[in-house]
Amino acid sequence: MKKIEAIIRPEKLEKVSEALLEKGHYGMTVTEVRGRGAQRGIALQFRGKEILVDLIPKVKIEIVTEDEDLDGIVDIIKEYAHTGKNGDGKIFIYDIEKCLTVRDS
Amino acid sequence: MKKIEAIIRPEKLEKVSEALLEKGHYGMTVTEVRGRGAQRGIALQFRGKEILVDLIPKVKIEIVTEDEDLDGIVDIIKEYAHTGKNGDGKIFIYDIEKCLTVRDS
Amino acid sequence: MKKIEAIIRPEKLEKVSEALLEKGHYGMTVTEVRGRGAQRGIALQFRGKEILVDLIPKVKIEIVTEDEDLDGIVDIIKEYAHTGKNGDGKIFIYDIEKCLTVRDS
Ligand SMILES: Nc1ncnc2c1ncn2[C@@H]1O[C@H](COP(=O)(O)OP(=O)(O)OP(=O)(O)O)[C@@H](O)[C@H]1O
Ligand SMILES: Nc1ncnc2c1ncn2[C@@H]1O[C@H](COP(=O)(O)OP(=O)(O)OP(=O)(O)O)[C@@H](O)[C@H]1O
Ligand SMILES: Nc1ncnc2c1ncn2[C@@H]1O[C@H](COP(=O)(O)OP(=O)(O)OP(=O)(O)O)[C@@H](O)[C@H]1O
Ligand SMILES: [Mg+2]
Ligand SMILES: [Mg+2]
Ligand SMILES: [Mg+2]
Repeated sequence: MKKIEAIIRPEKLEKVSEALLEKGHYGMTVTEVRGRGAQRGIALQFRGKEILVDLIPKVKIEIVTEDEDLDGIVDIIKEYAHTGKNGDGKIFIYDIEKCLTVRDS
Repeated sequence: MKKIEAIIRPEKLEKVSEALLEKGHYGMTVTEVRGRGAQRGIALQFRGKEILVDLIPKVKIEIVTEDEDLDGIVDIIKEYAHTGKNGDGKIFIYDIEKCLTVRDS
Repeated sequence: MKKIEAIIRPEKLEKVSEALLEKGHYGMTVTEVRGRGAQRGIALQFRGKEILVDLIPKVKIEIVTEDEDLDGIVDIIKEYAHTGKNGDGKIFIYDIEKCLTVRDS
C-alpha cells in the first residue's frame, strides 16, 4: 500500500481530478498549501521594484492506493498537471502500513 | 513510532478530540481538507438538476504516537467518528523514524 | 530520501523560511494547521471564566530532502523556531520512497 502526495498548480486540480475519476481512481484528499521549489519563489515587478513572492499557492493531492495502481495514478497526475514550465509540481511516494475504513468498525 | 492519519467528518472532530483527551492522548494536529472516497462525491438536487459535489469538506487528524498506544487511539477514532453511513472516513497508519521536540533544542 | 515535517509557531515561519533559503535549502511546502501538544491546550481567562483553547493555530512545514542534508535542515528549524517555552513545536522524520518532478515528465 502506497501514498502518493502530489503538490501541483491549483488551476490544474480540476483536470487531474476528472482524469483520475475517469480511470476509476476515486479516493483522494486535497489540501490548500503554499510552497517553493528549486527557484525559491517568483520575482515580480511591483511599482518599479522587484519583490520576491516566496511561498506560492499550490494544491496538495493525497491518494492512498494498492501498489498495482501506483504507476497508473502517477502517470495521470504527471500528464494532467504538466505545463513544461518551472513550478509544475512534485510527486512524493511513501509506504503506508495499514488503511482502515471508519464505517466498517 | 507511528503516525495515525484519520480523515473524518468535520462535525465529528469535537467528539473524537474530547474522547482522545479523556483517555490521555493529547498530541494532535488538525487540517481542513476536502476529499472523496469510493462513492466519488455526492449527487445533490439543485434547481431541478443533479450536480455532483465532488470534493467534500473533511478534517484530517494526525497523531504521532508510541507503538503501544496505536490500537487504543485507532479504536477511539473509529468509535467516535462512526455513523455507519458512507463517508465516515479513512484511517492511514505509517512508520515514523524520529520525533523531536523543538523546545528541547 | 527523507521528509521532515515540522509543526511550529506561525510567527516563526518567516525566520525559519529565510534561514533555510540562506543555507540553500529552497524546496518547502507550508500548511496552516491547528494543534495541541502535551499540555492539552492553553487555559485563558475570559470574562472571569477559564476557558480551554484546545487547538492552537500552528504552521506545518514539509521538506523533502536527500539524507545528507537532513541534519542541517533539522538544526536550522530547531534554532529558528525555538523560544524555550511550551508549544515551540515538533519535528517528525519519515522515509520517502521516491520523488518526481512533474515538469520532467
Ligand atoms: N524539496 C521539497 N520539499 C517539499 N516540498 C517541495 C519541495 N520542492 C518542491 N516542493 C513543493 O512543490 C511545489 C512545486 O515545486 P516546483 O514544481 O517548483 O519544484 P521544482 O523542483 O522547483 O521543479 P521545477 O524546476 O520544475 O520548478 C512547491 O511550491 C512546493 O510546495
Ligand atoms: N484512497 C484514498 N486516498 C486518499 N484519501 C482518501 C481515500 N479514500 C478516502 N479518502 C479520504 O477520506 C474521506 C472519507 O472517505 P470515505 O469515508 O467516503 O471512504 P470510503 O472508502 O468511500 O468509505 P465508505 O464506503 O464508508 O464511504 C474522503 O473524503 C477523502 O478525503
Ligand atoms: N503527538 C503529536 N502528534 C501530532 N501532532 C503533535 C503531537 N504533539 C504535538 N503536535 C503538534 O505540534 C504542535 C506543537 O506542540 P508542542 O510544541 O506543544 O509539543 P509538546 O510535546 O507539548 O512540547 P512542549 O512541552 O515544548 O510544549 C501542536 O500544536 C500539534 O500541532
Ligand atoms: Mg520550481
Ligand atoms: Mg465513501
Ligand atoms: Mg506543548
